[in-house]
Amino acid sequence: MPELRKDPILGRWVIISSERVNRPTDFHRPRGRKPGGGFCPFCAGNEYTTPTEILAYRPEGSAPNSPGWSLRVVPNKYPALQIEGSLDPVGEELFLKTDGIGAHEVIIETPEHEQSLSTLSLKEVEALLWAYRSRMVDLEGDSRLQYVLIFKNQGPAAGATLEHSHSQLIALPIVPKHVREEVDGSLSYHRRNGRCVYCDIIAREGELRERVVAENEHFVALCPFASLFPFETWIVPKSHIAHYEHSSAQLPSLAALLRESIRRLNAVLDEPDYNYVIHTSPLRAGDLAHYHWHLELIPKVSQVAGFEWGSGFYINPTPPEEAAASLRNAAIDK
Amino acid sequence: MPELRKDPILGRWVIISSERVNRPTDFHRPRGRKPGGGFCPFCAGNEYTTPTEILAYRPEGSAPNSPGWSLRVVPNKYPALQIEGSLDPVGEELFLKTDGIGAHEVIIETPEHEQSLSTLSLKEVEALLWAYRSRMVDLEGDSRLQYVLIFKNQGPAAGATLEHSHSQLIALPIVPKHVREEVDGSLSYHRRNGRCVYCDIIAREGELRERVVAENEHFVALCPFASLFPFETWIVPKSHIAHYEHSSAQLPSLAALLRESIRRLNAVLDEPDYNYVIHTSPLRAGDLAHYHWHLELIPKVSQVAGFEWGSGFYINPTPPEEAAASLRNAAIDK
Repeated sequence: MPELRKDPILGRWVIISSERVNRPTDFHRPRGRKPGGGFCPFCAGNEYTTPTEILAYRPEGSAPNSPGWSLRVVPNKYPALQIEGSLDPVGEELFLKTDGIGAHEVIIETPEHEQSLSTLSLKEVEALLWAYRSRMVDLEGDSRLQYVLIFKNQGPAAGATLEHSHSQLIALPIVPKHVREEVDGSLSYHRRNGRCVYCDIIAREGELRERVVAENEHFVALCPFASLFPFETWIVPKSHIAHYEHSSAQLPSLAALLRESIRRLNAVLDEPDYNYVIHTSPLRAGDLAHYHWHLELIPKVSQVAGFEWGSGFYINPTPPEEAAASLRNAAIDK
Repeated sequence: MPELRKDPILGRWVIISSERVNRPTDFHRPRGRKPGGGFCPFCAGNEYTTPTEILAYRPEGSAPNSPGWSLRVVPNKYPALQIEGSLDPVGEELFLKTDGIGAHEVIIETPEHEQSLSTLSLKEVEALLWAYRSRMVDLEGDSRLQYVLIFKNQGPAAGATLEHSHSQLIALPIVPKHVREEVDGSLSYHRRNGRCVYCDIIAREGELRERVVAENEHFVALCPFASLFPFETWIVPKSHIAHYEHSSAQLPSLAALLRESIRRLNAVLDEPDYNYVIHTSPLRAGDLAHYHWHLELIPKVSQVAGFEWGSGFYINPTPPEEAAASLRNAAIDK
């Protein structure tokens, strides 16, 4: 059974999940290992090797867990969290823990092994964004859950263990520390200024232009002023909206700018591995005036983030103005 | 000129340092690139290729920047921070920045290219720890500096760009976020309980034993209860002491346990790349009753930390009890 453990100094929770890796030898020289190669459980025709699907986009009348789908959502076979258990913390103050309650799902983005987000059609990317939304709305019904974290690890350097293009969803009984800090920081800004800090950032960046990568009807992509990582890119809705799952008319616009942003990274950085994370409001938090959902896209291009993990202190060797200019000027097909 | 930029939402500072990498092509496929190979600026005989040494352990009477030394401290040739400039923040609230004031030094741990911390003699490791201390004491005299961050990146996966064994020092005009949170969290625990949280952890771990890796006269090595990373190991002084640089009689004991801990990681994880960071009190903070310096040692064995950067939420696949048992039982020469 996975556990959630609380750090007694920082108050931060971590999932301790021994379902996933068990022996020290599993860690030996992972950097030389090739992912995939051979059998792929996410390919069409291999549906029987995954847990039973939770959601699928497939022709009407076709059987669940059979081929024909364009997108599938399945439980992670090695879940970091499980749906059964108790959230009551146990243990002394220094060693508080609870059962690792939650959900861990995989969104298989395409039946085809060779596709990726940058090669899918806009309709397919849009379907993915709808799938994210559907799962959030569904999981919101479980009152034990406080947050749905949706993210994508693309490529081995970004933490993907399977090559076939997929995203992941982790539903949590706590709000992740970074999100909590963003919500709190935004609230503090709102109290001082009476406005949403993200709305203000978009407005000023739109005037200054130097950190804007691209934009379309509903979204802007920019390299944030205090970027932690080279070529870090945020995709932010132009209108104030606290919850990702409250977006609907905007999703085609998001699909276009997300694919375009990835294509720009691919052009400038030679198809880097990358991560993205959707930062959205906690479930059932209401229409917060101070928080503004957005997507953070981070290419995994450098190992500068070594000691940073231990200190929380970052050195970014690429000014975001230079990163944005390179990305903006990249010659790509949108 | 490097800059310190403040994140308007999180209040966190980041160094934007374009001295170090300049073109997007510098980021292409770094994972395939071999470090070192050929000329090494840190080897004995090549002293002329580094900036002038700040400190060296060398025979009395031998000339600075000539061979014969056993340890050298030099300014980083591509510094993330510089000593000249102004700390006055400039810019509007959303885009506050200051000059990137500070120091960035390299501690070359040995004149021999093939050595590493795990193969150095205890006297040599102890000399390294004395060098850390000397540099901290010296930099404390610059009242603009608030923190000295000492860390080591061992191996390319951990962010080392040069193979020759070295540590780094970054002196900062701000306290890193993670340290600030630790100091604040420890203060909060002290107010509730009247005791240092690290002292309490050591006492309880010493009774429970399950997360203790090793110990000696003055230090204990343990895998913390809420470890973020597999095989994360803390080395903590047994007696309460807030500042690393106030240690002296304890340094031989620290040298022994640090080298032993690295040898245990090497035995269990097949010589992993690793990072360590010294967590110590801010400069001139006084003898804090609530904060307790320690060293955090993190092998870079997995890529699980992909989306974690974006969310601050971590999944650790190895329970620290299992990690500690493996490390404790490893057959090594101490």
